[in-house]
This record gives sequence, C-alpha cells and structure tokens, in this order.
Amino acid sequence: MKIKKNQTNKLKIFNDPVYGFIKIPDEIIFDLIEHPYFQRLRRIKQLGLTHLVYPGALHTRFHHGLGAMHLTEQAIEILRYKGFEITDDEALSVIIAILLHDIGHGPFSHALERSIVENLGHEDLSEIFMNKLNNEFNGELQLSIDIFKNNYHKKFLHQMVTGQLDMDRLDYLNRDSYFTGVSEGVISYDRIIKMLYVANDNLVVEEKGIYSIEKFIVARRLMYWQGYLHKTVISAEKLLINILKRAKELALNGDKIIVPNYLSPFLKNSYSKHDFESNHKLLDNFARLDDFDFYTAFKEWSKSEDPILSLLCNNLLNRNLYRIELQTEPFSKAYIERIKDIAMSKLKISENDVDYLVNVDVTENHAYDINVDNIFIINKHGLLTDIAEASDQLNISVLSTPVKKHYICYPKTIKMLLDK
Amino acid sequence: MKIKKNQTNKLKIFNDPVYGFIKIPDEIIFDLIEHPYFQRLRRIKQLGLTHLVYPGALHTRFHHGLGAMHLTEQAIEILRYKGFEITDDEALSVIIAILLHDIGHGPFSHALERSIVENLGHEDLSEIFMNKLNNEFNGELQLSIDIFKNNYHKKFLHQMVTGQLDMDRLDYLNRDSYFTGVSEGVISYDRIIKMLYVANDNLVVEEKGIYSIEKFIVARRLMYWQGYLHKTVISAEKLLINILKRAKELALNGDKIIVPNYLSPFLKNSYSKHDFESNHKLLDNFARLDDFDFYTAFKEWSKSEDPILSLLCNNLLNRNLYRIELQTEPFSKAYIERIKDIAMSKLKISENDVDYLVNVDVTENHAYDINVDNIFIINKHGLLTDIAEASDQLNISVLSTPVKKHYICYPKTIKMLLDK
Amino acid sequence: MKIKKNQTNKLKIFNDPVYGFIKIPDEIIFDLIEHPYFQRLRRIKQLGLTHLVYPGALHTRFHHGLGAMHLTEQAIEILRYKGFEITDDEALSVIIAILLHDIGHGPFSHALERSIVENLGHEDLSEIFMNKLNNEFNGELQLSIDIFKNNYHKKFLHQMVTGQLDMDRLDYLNRDSYFTGVSEGVISYDRIIKMLYVANDNLVVEEKGIYSIEKFIVARRLMYWQGYLHKTVISAEKLLINILKRAKELALNGDKIIVPNYLSPFLKNSYSKHDFESNHKLLDNFARLDDFDFYTAFKEWSKSEDPILSLLCNNLLNRNLYRIELQTEPFSKAYIERIKDIAMSKLKISENDVDYLVNVDVTENHAYDINVDNIFIINKHGLLTDIAEASDQLNISVLSTPVKKHYICYPKTIKMLLDK
Amino acid sequence: MKIKKNQTNKLKIFNDPVYGFIKIPDEIIFDLIEHPYFQRLRRIKQLGLTHLVYPGALHTRFHHGLGAMHLTEQAIEILRYKGFEITDDEALSVIIAILLHDIGHGPFSHALERSIVENLGHEDLSEIFMNKLNNEFNGELQLSIDIFKNNYHKKFLHQMVTGQLDMDRLDYLNRDSYFTGVSEGVISYDRIIKMLYVANDNLVVEEKGIYSIEKFIVARRLMYWQGYLHKTVISAEKLLINILKRAKELALNGDKIIVPNYLSPFLKNSYSKHDFESNHKLLDNFARLDDFDFYTAFKEWSKSEDPILSLLCNNLLNRNLYRIELQTEPFSKAYIERIKDIAMSKLKISENDVDYLVNVDVTENHAYDINVDNIFIINKHGLLTDIAEASDQLNISVLSTPVKKHYICYPKTIKMLLDK
Repeated sequence: MKIKKNQTNKLKIFNDPVYGFIKIPDEIIFDLIEHPYFQRLRRIKQLGLTHLVYPGALHTRFHHGLGAMHLTEQAIEILRYKGFEITDDEALSVIIAILLHDIGHGPFSHALERSIVENLGHEDLSEIFMNKLNNEFNGELQLSIDIFKNNYHKKFLHQMVTGQLDMDRLDYLNRDSYFTGVSEGVISYDRIIKMLYVANDNLVVEEKGIYSIEKFIVARRLMYWQGYLHKTVISAEKLLINILKRAKELALNGDKIIVPNYLSPFLKNSYSKHDFESNHKLLDNFARLDDFDFYTAFKEWSKSEDPILSLLCNNLLNRNLYRIELQTEPFSKAYIERIKDIAMSKLKISENDVDYLVNVDVTENHAYDINVDNIFIINKHGLLTDIAEASDQLNISVLSTPVKKHYICYPKTIKMLLDK
Repeated sequence: MKIKKNQTNKLKIFNDPVYGFIKIPDEIIFDLIEHPYFQRLRRIKQLGLTHLVYPGALHTRFHHGLGAMHLTEQAIEILRYKGFEITDDEALSVIIAILLHDIGHGPFSHALERSIVENLGHEDLSEIFMNKLNNEFNGELQLSIDIFKNNYHKKFLHQMVTGQLDMDRLDYLNRDSYFTGVSEGVISYDRIIKMLYVANDNLVVEEKGIYSIEKFIVARRLMYWQGYLHKTVISAEKLLINILKRAKELALNGDKIIVPNYLSPFLKNSYSKHDFESNHKLLDNFARLDDFDFYTAFKEWSKSEDPILSLLCNNLLNRNLYRIELQTEPFSKAYIERIKDIAMSKLKISENDVDYLVNVDVTENHAYDINVDNIFIINKHGLLTDIAEASDQLNISVLSTPVKKHYICYPKTIKMLLDK
Repeated sequence: MKIKKNQTNKLKIFNDPVYGFIKIPDEIIFDLIEHPYFQRLRRIKQLGLTHLVYPGALHTRFHHGLGAMHLTEQAIEILRYKGFEITDDEALSVIIAILLHDIGHGPFSHALERSIVENLGHEDLSEIFMNKLNNEFNGELQLSIDIFKNNYHKKFLHQMVTGQLDMDRLDYLNRDSYFTGVSEGVISYDRIIKMLYVANDNLVVEEKGIYSIEKFIVARRLMYWQGYLHKTVISAEKLLINILKRAKELALNGDKIIVPNYLSPFLKNSYSKHDFESNHKLLDNFARLDDFDFYTAFKEWSKSEDPILSLLCNNLLNRNLYRIELQTEPFSKAYIERIKDIAMSKLKISENDVDYLVNVDVTENHAYDINVDNIFIINKHGLLTDIAEASDQLNISVLSTPVKKHYICYPKTIKMLLDK
Repeated sequence: MKIKKNQTNKLKIFNDPVYGFIKIPDEIIFDLIEHPYFQRLRRIKQLGLTHLVYPGALHTRFHHGLGAMHLTEQAIEILRYKGFEITDDEALSVIIAILLHDIGHGPFSHALERSIVENLGHEDLSEIFMNKLNNEFNGELQLSIDIFKNNYHKKFLHQMVTGQLDMDRLDYLNRDSYFTGVSEGVISYDRIIKMLYVANDNLVVEEKGIYSIEKFIVARRLMYWQGYLHKTVISAEKLLINILKRAKELALNGDKIIVPNYLSPFLKNSYSKHDFESNHKLLDNFARLDDFDFYTAFKEWSKSEDPILSLLCNNLLNRNLYRIELQTEPFSKAYIERIKDIAMSKLKISENDVDYLVNVDVTENHAYDINVDNIFIINKHGLLTDIAEASDQLNISVLSTPVKKHYICYPKTIKMLLDK
C-alpha cells in the first residue's frame, strides 16, 4: 500500500500565515505557478517601497495571487451551496483568472507607470501574458481570459475577479494588514464571503452582511491613508520616480550609465502595447525584470558621476527620504518658489535640476466609487439596494467623494533653513 | 538566597487571553480584587444573554475590570513619557477608579433596570459600593472617588475612566470581540493609547491617530448592531424582562412562587438609592446577587403553576426565543393587533397576558454623541478640533445622529399562522 | 426571486472565535442542537473551576461540541480528497457521534464522580442519552451509536471520535488555550488534519506530520500541568468535592439543608447505570442539572448552620482557596499530622471533620499512553511506526510514563502557624 | 502650546506585526538605526532562501534587530521590578548590544561561509562593525561591546544578548513563526520574560516557568526541522552554494563572468579577519553588499556561456530545485555512484562537474546544548537546577543529543531514470 495522493506531486499545500494553508486545487494550477512568468512574481513586492515605513511589508505579488485564489475557491463553494450553478470548468477558470489577474505587474508598477513605462498599464500586460500562456497551454485558458475580460455570459464570475468586492481586494486588505501590522485593515473576509449571493447575474451581498461591507469600505479607506498613501510612502515613491526619470534622461542623453541587462531597454525606449504583443522577446525581457534589477541599479548609480543621480540613490538606499508636507489646499506659488530658491542657493542645484529635489503634486482616493461596479445588498424579499443607500448611517455617498491631498516634497536639510 | 518579590504574594500576574498578561500593580489592588464585592463580578456576565447568539460571550465583569485596569496603566505610562505629570497617588487612584467603575452592576443590569430594579442605575450603585469600600479601607479610596465623580481638578484623569474614549470602552470592545468572535469590533487600542495626549486638561488624541479614532467609532457602532443590539439578543432580553415582570406581578399578588434567597427582596420591593445608602444589609444582599440566582429561578419557575411564567422560562432555558422583526418605521396598529389576535385565539392567551408574548418596542444607538465628552484631535500646532470635524470624509456628524429601530417580538409558532 | 437557502432556516452559521465560523451541515444536526439535552450543555462549563485561575475559562461543553463537529467535517473532507470512501451516511453519523460524545457530562463531572455520583461515568451517560435520542429520532442515530461504541466495521471512523488523536482532543486543546490564554496549548490542528490518512482501517498520520504530532503530545502534556492539573485548580476542585461530600453527609443524616430541586435526588441517593436506563424521569432530572444548581446551592449553604459547610462554601464563593503543596514524594506522616493538629487546635475543628480541611492526595498524568490507541505514522512506502518510535529525539516513551504528584491542601491561615 | 515630545523627532514608534509597536527608547538608538550599516540590514533576509518553501518568509535582519531590542527592554523592566540593579547606562548598552548583535551578517551568511567567504564568521564581523561604530560615536558603544564580548562584570547582561535563552532567540522564533506561518514555533515569550530572574549573576528562570521553557526548547527544535533545516530549504541552499562555488571557480580561472560591483572582490579573493580590521574600504564594500547583488548576479549568470553556471542559476530563479533524499544512515557508495553515473551519461555532465549537480552531505541540530550556557531553573528556596534535570518528563538530555541527517541532492530529471 502506497500513499495514493499526489502521484504527480502537484496537489501541494502551501503554508500561508494569513489563512493557514492554501491547497493547489488542480494540476494545471500547479503548472501555472511553476511557470517562470509566475515564479517571477516572487521577486516583486506587493507594496513597492511601503516597507520603508512598515518593515514587515515585504510580501510579494506571488503570495497575493495564491491568497486571492484561495478566497475564490471559498466563494465558489458558498455560492454552489446556495444553489447557484458554477460548472467545474467555470470554477477552474475563475480560479485561474484570479491567480493571473496581476501577472502583468512589473516591479514598482505605479512608479514605473509614472516614469519610464508611461504608455502601458499592468492590466494590458496581464492580458498579454495570459494570451501567451493560453498559447503554451493549448487554449486551456480561453475561458479564464473570457471571464477576465468580461466576455463571458455569467457576469458574476467576472465580478469575483474584478469589482468593488472582488477576491483581489479581500485578499490584499487582509494580507497587507498582516504584513504591515496595521490592524485597521483587518476585515471579516470570511463573513463577507459567507454572505455572497447572486442576483440578476450580479455578485451581491445578503442583507445581514451589511455591517461587514461597511467595515470593508471603511477599512479600505483607512488602509489607503495609513498604508498605500502614507505620507512617507508617497515621499519614497517620489524619490524612486525622480531616480528613474533622471536615469532615463541621462540614458537618452547618451551619458555613461550602467544599467542592468533587463532594465536597460526600458530606460532607453518607450514601448506600446502593440510592441509587446508583436515582439515576444520584449515580453520575455519584461518577464525577467524584477525588484532586484532596480535595487542593483540604485546601488550602481549611487556612485554615478552625475551628482543628482548619485544623491537621489544614496538617499533611497540609506532611507534619507524627502520631507513631505500635505494639506487640503494647493500650496501657494510663493511657498513653492521659496523652497526651490533655497534648494538652488544653498544646495547648489541648478534651475534645470531643481524639480528632482522639490516636487509638488496631488494624491487622491475614494473609498467607494459610486459609478463603478456598485456593491448591492439583497434583502430577504430579493430587493437590491446600493450599499450607499442601504447603510442607515455611514454616509457612504460621502465616502465616494474623492479626497484630494496636495503635497510638497523637498530634502530634509531645507527644513531647517525654512524655519529660520 | 530567596526569591525576593512577592513576599506578601500579592503582586500576582493574571493570564488574559486578550492582552497576554495583566500585572497587579499594587497591594491594595490585590486586596480590592480579593474583596467579596469584587469577586462577585466573577459571576456576572459582561454581556448578559448575548451568549445565546455568540456562544463564546461568557466573559465576566471581573475580567473586564482587570482589562480596563491594564489599559489604564499603559495610558498613564504614555502620558508620563510625553511629559505630563501624574503623581504616584494619582496613578494608583485612577487605576482603582477604573477597576471599580462597574462594581455596581448587578446581573443582567439592563434588563433589571427595565423590570424589577427600576429606580436605580448601576452608576449610583458603583458609587455606593465605592464609598462603602472607602470606609473599609480607611479612606484610601477617596481620591479614586473624587476622580470617578469628576471632583478632582485634573479632569483628564476622570476622562480616562469615563468619557467617549475611556479605557472602559477600549477594553470592552476588544474583549467582547475576542469572546464573541465578531472581528468587526477589533480596534487598535494600543495605537490609540500611544496617541493620547493632554491639552487644556482634556484627554485628546494626536493628529496622526485620527484614522484609528475613526475606526474606533465605526467599530463601536458595528459592535452595537452586530452584538449588543443584535436582533436575537434583543429578543432574548425581552424574554428575560417579561419573565421578571411576570414573577414580580405574581410575587406582589401573593401567589406562591419560589424565589432564591438573594433575589427575593428585589422581587417583592422597590428600593431607592437612599435605601441602599442607609441600609448596609440591603447593599450586602445585593452584593450576593449574581447570574446564578436568576438561572436557578428560571429553572424553578419553568415548573411553576402559572402557565405564562413556566412557558417563558422554558423558552429561555431551551433557547426557544421570540421571533423578532425590526424596521425603521413604527409597526402599524393593524399589524400589531393581528398578531395579538392570533396569540389570543390560537395560543389561548388572555388579553391581560398577551403583552408577555407580543411586544412592541424601539431600540436606538448613536455611535458618537456629539454633545457629550467630545473627542478632540490635537494637531502639531496645538490646535484642537472635534473628531466630527477633523475627519475629512467619514461623516461623523451623521454617525452622531441616533439610529432608531422599531421591533415587534412574538412566539415563533405565530409566524406560520401569520403567513397563511 | 427569494433567497433560496434556509427555507427551513436550519442551516445556520455560528460565530466561533476559535475557527471563525461553524456551519451546521444538516437539518438533523440543527434539531439535535435545539434539543433541551444539548441546549443544557450551554450551562455546563468545559473546565469546571479552572476559571478561578484563568478568568477567561468560562466556555461550555456546548461550544466544544460544535467545535469538535467542525473539525470532524474537515477531517472527512481531507480523507475523501485522499481517496478513502466515506459515504454520506457515514459522514453524517460520525459528525453526530462527535457532536454528542460529551452529552453525558454533568456539571463539574470530575468532582461529581469523586463525591456524589460515584458509580457512573459520563461515558455511560452519553450512551444512555444517545439511545434516548435515537428513540426520539426514529432510529436515525443508530449508525452514530455504532460508531461511538466501536461496533461499526470501519474502525477509523470511531477513532475520529475517540482515540489519542481524535477531534475531541484537537478541539479542546485549541479551545481551552483560546479561552484560558495559555498559549502553550496551541496546536497546528489544521496541519494535523491535513496529514490524516487511513491505513489498515486505522486513522494514522503521514510522515511529514510527525513534528506536528510531537508538538501535539507536548502541548497536551503542558496543558495538563499548566491548566487542568494546575495546583490552584486542584485545590479549588478539592474544595468543591469536600463541599459536596459534606452536603451529602448532612443530607443523609437528615439534617436540614436546602437543596435546589434538580440537585436534591443526587445528594440523597446513589444511582446505578441501570437506574438511569430504566427510569426516564431520572434521566430527565439529570438533564436539567447544570452549573447553576451548584452555585445556587453553595450560596444557600454559605449561610448554613453547619459551620464546616458554611465555611467551605464561603471560601469557594470568595475564592479563598486551600493552600496547596505539591511534591514528587509522598508527604511524611509527621508533616500531615502536624498540619491536622494545628487545624484541630487553632481552628477548633473536631477530629471527625478535619478531613474536610486538610487533604492529602495524588494526581497523575501521562502525556501519551503507549498502550491505548497508539498514534501511528505512515511513511511514503506505507510502513507504519508508533510515534513513540518514529520520533527521532523526543523521548516519547518517557512521555508515556505517568507522572505522579503528591499534594496536601489546607487552609491558608494554617500556613503562618506552620512557619512559626 | 506645541506637542512636546519628539523635538528631535527621534523617539519614533515602529509598527511591528509581531509585537504591535516598537518604541525607540533613546536618541542614540535612532542614530544607530539610521546609520547605513544598519539600514543595509533592510536588504538582507533573515532566512535566506526559506521563502522558496514558505512564501511569507521575507522578513529581514533589520526587523529582527528591532524585535530583539524590544524584548530586551521588557526583560530589563522585569528584572528591575524584581529588584535587580541595572543602571540606565547598562540598560542602554545591553539594548545597543542586542540591536547590533547581527550587524555582521552578510546576505545568505550560512551559504556564504560555506562557499566564498570561508575564513570569517558573522560574529567576527559584528565585532568589527561595532568597533567601527564605536569610533564614529566617540566611544559611546564601549560598554555595549564589553557586554557583547562578555568582558563586563555583570554576566547576566551578556546572557540576555547571547545564550541559550537570549532575546535573540526569543525574537527569531516568534518572528520566523509569524512570517512563515509555521505555528509550531510560537512560544510564550512574554511568559518566559516574566519568569526571568538573576542568580549568581546568571540569567535563570523561576520554577513556575519550567513548562514554558520546555515548550521553548521543543518549539526551537521543531522550527529547525520544519523551517531552517526543511529539506527543500537545504536543497535550495545547496544550489546557492554550488552557484557561488562555480562562479568563484570561473572567476579565479579568469573566465569572463559579469559580477556586480560589490560582490566582485569576494569572488576573486579570500579575506581574513585582519584584512577587514585593517582595511576600512573593504569593510565599507562589505557593508554595501546585500541580497540584491546576489539575485542580480544569478539573473546575469543565467545567460552565462558556462552551461553549468547558467543551468544552476536558471534552476534557482525558476525554483527548479534539486530533488533531495534524507535518511539517518549515510548513503551507500553504490547509490551515490549510480546517481552520478546517470548524471554524467544522461545529462552529459563531465566528471569534473558532476559535484555541482549531485551532492552528498550531512546536517545536524541539537535542540538543547548541554555544554553551553545551560538554562537554569531556580526554585522558591533559591536552588538552581539545569532544565535538563528539572524537567520531570521531557527527556531533555535526549534533546541535547545532536540529530544527524544525511542527504543527497540531484536534479529532478534523474529521479525518473532512477526509478526505472
């Protein structure tokens, strides 16, 4: 008598500190996880530079993909238990879709999209990756792609992958809370999943789950301001963006600058979606890019002859971040000019370069977007109401107003000169 | 060489699943905890009948008192660290005040105050108990009493004991969440405590704690609706109130009804605050009353000759609770009459007794009370703002509007007859 | 469109702080839980007087029954996933068997069995209850009873209910740790369940689960010494036993002693298993007995005219427990006599009564019982090894040696006299 | 009125998911944390390649240093509370010593010490770093260094930093459990700390902490086998070692191989402790080395012309690890030869290179080392006993026997050929 299970050794179980264990539900899932495109996500942090504020926030997109897959399995089980038909094919395809939903993310995506890869979102890249994998897997991912792109007739399956209450968000709030230690983000994901329902082909929530949804929306908002848009995180990302902009400027100028192999093309060219679709080598190059290339570049550049680039890189490596001020109103021109003047006169920065050290910008967030993929509550009579109206007290319509915060960043040394 | 500590063996450490360990900080605290008045709290559940919905909610007022004491110690330490003077005497006195703040609670206080002990709140009783203990401890509790009653010149000390952000609330949200398993109530109590500050002799919160406070207010509201005012909890408490009313009615009528010793006087008389202050035997009798007397009475009464009393008691013991409907609007007279008619005709209940089986009432809650003990946020320039205004998005002024819910309770058997 | 699920409203979900949520898997389970025999377990604490040491330890046998049921469901799912056949009938029957496995427990069972109910174990009573319920449910529990009594041909099903690695133990270690806060007892129950396997019709563990099993055995042992056999818990139980013995002595003597209704027969008679089987009224009387009857009795007796009984009861109510000394060797006769002498001379206790105040006894525990229901590890070649041999280093054969501890209990006041 | 605290803005609070919050207790601590030598630890994972098995295990030595500091503060507070004198200077110095105890770790230390940096342990490097910092901080670290090197007369201070029960171990067990999700490693660190005591200038444990210490020893052992020495982790580290050996071989041969700047000298030279002490540039070069240099090198080398190096690197990047077999006995020569033969004939590996693909080695661990820094238990009479003897049942003397496991690693493709 031999142990039967796992003859192919593919139905493995992962330890996950957030959910305990994550089972791989099918062999094809194992093969997808093993694929270099997916393994690469092991080297891309979920939260970019947030670990400079919360030292535990080092978790990766790999882990998040597994987590979202785990929650999707649970949601499928609950919906079937309530009598909604989800065929085995559909179930597997949704699971694959959520597993791969973020596969197009590069390292520091948000910073990248604002500096060196300006024409291409990670959603486009995810789609391109999925098509490529579909080829390799002989079309077995077609239904997943249809669901991902909302081309499949059962729309609630798509909403599990992308929507205001999708398994992506449920996992990242949990996971980001766990690894940052910001308990504000903890949500009752298991309760929310247990309250899921389908009405008019939409993923909705049973009435008694209303408080959990309110909590979810509030938690999400708090995680934004305390985590993703924490002022020090914004400051660190700004530093990163400025480094990449400077490096690109130098590279395009033909200045001598050492660039890791896989990063190099993206510093010297701008690619379109079409380029990635038609040029598989380009996609494979992108697929090899990860956080490490960037850090190694920063370390290399910290010794660059260009004083701006070396200053910025040293600052990032030693966590000597910009000082940042936030406020509701825009900063006055006079104040901005005064800071730039100090930067130029005291730090000997030329007018051309001052924008690398002094930045004015705005960030915004809305906790609940009333125009997109509304969350509906279903009562026991089958009536649907938008959560924004169903909630008796939490003024969710207010939550849906975007909050803007203006900010200005500048070197810490300027602070003392300002106060004089 | 002998182990030095604990020569009196009074500086003990309690295991607490919520905070890990709770140290007894002083010998007098040990003596107070050992006192029968405080030991009695071991037999009074913090959440009355809530365990009929959340089976883990069996924790007691004893445990809550220790927990609140633990948080108060931490708050004192932080405030001293920030440079605010709290003398050793003051520190000990605040700790005693919070330890004893709930000592006046009887079993099922809220139900009691709505049935058999109608003229006396637990706050009054706490004060009476504290005065009595102060006598026994030769005046050592005087400062605690002054702080408790807000007669001491440093008002922020009183606010640690009673206020919208007191250590009482911080502990009970944590503790109730832990034992019920309702994760919605989890708050960042340690973060909130770390953000405490004193301004104009008020306990306030540093600006960067604003999101934690918002979360605290939202969590508190959710715990109300999902816990304390959960519809099944309301239904169970209504049953309890009706049992006690019926028993009192019978007792006053002179009907034969077996009543446990310590409960007996309260069923047969109505006492005023003055009675308790002037009659120490009465206080001592009250001090021996606990949850057990009630349960034993219910079990006894479940065999009563009075059919209403025995029906109600059996229903409680076997968790055969009223069906309850809640809605925002009052119920129509016609609907109420219809239910009462069914109760009378089908369940053979007389018109006199029908109110024991069919109840109409209203419950309400406001998450943040804008008129009492406002929570102020202090910014880095020292300016104070009410959280209701400081919060950029959470419409806390809306949160402060009380939410009313009307409800009707009736035996489950009526439901089927209604649906016909 | 109406919500489909729960037309009978029986497939409910319980909040459980230990596992998050517990689903009721079948309508008959709901009906069993609703039955007064099971509801009664809400009023019987899992750990008797342990809450006098760990104030959170107030959880009930009701909650434990649900928890064990939840784990059993998970174990069934895993075993099916590994290819072992468990029919739907078998699955439901094991779940019922585990749900009801402790239904025979009375309040403070262990103390009871050592004082007033001396001829009957809770296992016998569980069986009697199950037979009675089987009658009421028209034989639907027959397979459960067969599995419970190990009369069913698939023995591994019985082992899930009763064995050294049954779901009962997995749940109580978790649950007791959670509510006491003794983190030593936390085990990787989910990992253990994931490693379960069936070999030769025995429930065994896959090789890679070996460390989790070692941890489980060690945790169990630590929970014994730090929880169940904590010296203060032993002392409190001794006090309880002495109270019950004294009360029975007085009752049999015909002394006037007020006894709550349901407790009364057990104080005045000794019943056999046969009595319970043949006399349904007796069973129903037992089924109404719970913790409350005892506490109310103690409170009543605290005012008894019998000085011993009132002393002991006051001591329990005010947590004025015996001082206890433990040691590996038996206590010397001389030492015991000296303590008794002090008790008699200084506390004015007669020689007849001194055993109510001074007790000498022994307690023992073995972490792993090598002779009963051994835990087997299966390696990848299908070979079975006893955990005691498979473990490379943890000397489990040593763990299986029972550890005896001798103890002596006496009133705290004697301590000072002793030290003179 | 301005907020008083933090005028220098150095007394910050870190979010730590393990302990909630970590306060920086002194300004010099802030300055040390800000130093590039310490910031660099942000880029060195605590557990090397363990994240290939437990995807959450990405936490860094930076975070561990802060955690150990936090526990040390608590231990100091408890010891002072028990009456042992620790001056403010001593307290600060122990805290600094624990903060810096691992500062000498390079990336993948254990692998490095077995491949390219063979003559130098991280303890030596920590000392060199501390001396350098002491210079920079004008001698303020002298007492810390004395304590670290056990040159200070109060030895128990040294034992808090290095010993079988030091704060280093307490933190890493907690932290590694948290981030891996291996609950087996969870220990009652807070209980252990509360039980610390000093006897004969040794850090010992009060008797009632004995079970927590047993648990600690067992947990540590389990974490070794389930975490640090998990067979897949061993396999991954072997792969890493082989990559580095190969790269060094090629570099020394003068083959063209691209090496990141900071890694380069270590691949081309072997340095002694003396080299580091006398050559500050070398130390600074080492101080800039981190995990990123290695990963970038692996990515570079994955395209190397050397087929062995590129194969090994691709295998690591895509997590295509060696198959590994472990057993108690050494592997037979015949078996080893057979595998090597298959490697040579089927995978076309030359005899010279076969050791890069087929490895035989041994790993060992003892849970408790009876010869070094024994853990002593102190009873209430002040007597000291080694835990190995004090424990009544856990055969700790057995635990102290090292367990050896022999293993063989080879490419997965060989497995199928072997089974034929």
